[in-house]
Amino acid sequence: MNLAVVRTDTGPRVVVRRRGDEVVQTAYRSLRAALEANLQHSHALREGAPVDPATLEFAPVADRDAKVFCIGHNYRAHIREMGHDLPTHPNVFSKFGSALVGATDAIELDRAAAQWDWEAELAVVIGGRTRRVTPQAARAQIAGYTVANDISARDWQRRSSQWLLGKTFEKTTPVGPWLVTPDEVDPEDGLDVRCLVDGVEKQAASTADLLFRPAFLVSYLSQVLTLEPGDVVLTGTPGGVGAARTPAERLTPGQTVRTEIDGLGCLVNTCIGTGSPEQVPTSTGTTSA
Amino acid sequence: MNLAVVRTDTGPRVVVRRRGDEVVQTAYRSLRAALEANLQHSHALREGAPVDPATLEFAPVADRDAKVFCIGHNYRAHIREMGHDLPTHPNVFSKFGSALVGATDAIELDRAAAQWDWEAELAVVIGGRTRRVTPQAARAQIAGYTVANDISARDWQRRSSQWLLGKTFEKTTPVGPWLVTPDEVDPEDGLDVRCLVDGVEKQAASTADLLFRPAFLVSYLSQVLTLEPGDVVLTGTPGGVGAARTPAERLTPGQTVRTEIDGLGCLVNTCIGTGSPEQVPTSTGTTSA
Repeated sequence: MNLAVVRTDTGPRVVVRRRGDEVVQTAYRSLRAALEANLQHSHALREGAPVDPATLEFAPVADRDAKVFCIGHNYRAHIREMGHDLPTHPNVFSKFGSALVGATDAIELDRAAAQWDWEAELAVVIGGRTRRVTPQAARAQIAGYTVANDISARDWQRRSSQWLLGKTFEKTTPVGPWLVTPDEVDPEDGLDVRCLVDGVEKQAASTADLLFRPAFLVSYLSQVLTLEPGDVVLTGTPGGVGAARTPAERLTPGQTVRTEIDGLGCLVNTCIGTGSPEQVPTSTGTTSA
Repeated sequence: MNLAVVRTDTGPRVVVRRRGDEVVQTAYRSLRAALEANLQHSHALREGAPVDPATLEFAPVADRDAKVFCIGHNYRAHIREMGHDLPTHPNVFSKFGSALVGATDAIELDRAAAQWDWEAELAVVIGGRTRRVTPQAARAQIAGYTVANDISARDWQRRSSQWLLGKTFEKTTPVGPWLVTPDEVDPEDGLDVRCLVDGVEKQAASTADLLFRPAFLVSYLSQVLTLEPGDVVLTGTPGGVGAARTPAERLTPGQTVRTEIDGLGCLVNTCIGTGSPEQVPTSTGTTSA
């Protein structure tokens, strides 16, 4: 089964696609509501009006108030090529829901930042309330998988030790188009992840190379707080980001980023410039305002 | 004017206290709704039923879905005593709303972490939608100030470069009891911030020593994303945290943490132990689950 959130004249709606079936539009207005209903009765997502797949306008596969976790340094080959030891624990940060965009939306490159970069990633969507579970039990809490690109402003990310602001500029992070349920695909089997910029391949790896796998990550996060239906975990990016290239590369307005994972689907997002170059009041910000 | 969110039999409600006035319970169920109504008409928060202040059960002064920003390294004396140069930009991270507790709630010290620590902080609450404003304009976007303690699990915070998980354990971070509006108090004048553990003073500083002041922080964050009514910014902690003491000190179940800021109020929270010691499946998490 595949789920998506689409924009309609009456707000967001969840649509469902089954293998060989048409797409139907359900009554659910959030991914969370749809996933909760699906837990309660297995027919919850079978009813709806058929819609033309060609007309779907994809919103992010995540509600605005979903928790969004991100993992740094999670592909073995990339960690080793950068000369690092394998980490003993996941490196976890977050971004706010306002950073997310849909599968074909524009990526907004704010002129307040200068060093925009790509990060193709497998994303995991939580299916039920999850707290203090083992990795074994965590598998059953995964609603499915989708595609994301953790577009990053490297200059803001590196201004201080904490990466948040470089990761959470508004309308930068495509997530979608479809959530694909685990009965159809398993990242542990190895799914090819690719990122292309203007048609040129920049990243290519297999999810089999993930150091911390989806079920482990869900288990680990659940030791700290309760995961809820619709929460999202971006599992980290493989090698080939612009900042690690020689010479370094950056995304610029007008470029198109294609992010694809076999068995899951494809994001196609064009970059546009927004805002103005930053005008920091003083270098230390101590001007009395 | 002072605002608080209290727990009632019918869910959270916003209450209002004016200088010399009684406390009234409004119809608003979230801080965000109350702040938005207050922007629309100045009498929005004048109507309500009187309630006995002695019976108030404080919830966090922040809605569950508020964005919560935190600032690291922001008191000059503390930065210098640690031997660091003054940073050129704020070091910003976040926590999830599920980490917050009310002014007299228990602080839950999860046994999955071992090194619990205190961090008394001034918190800023946003009053209106705020995007790309100057520090001067940011002042008008501040709904008010309150008290917070960014209780931290140092061992989890230091497992990797990103601090999020050590900062967002459930029910660890008291925020409240009252939001105090800027007409009554101005942190730039210098408010004394104190943290006492079992009656022993551990932190004492003045908000006049803040490197990045509230209006600057609001302006800075608004360059990246839209701040909304009820969003919260914890502005950083002064010296005297347990981890920086010789020998290092830790919070343990049974201890009471008192966090106070002159002109704003006081948090009194007792620590309790929850959960179980962590059982990490393997040191690298690569066990197939």
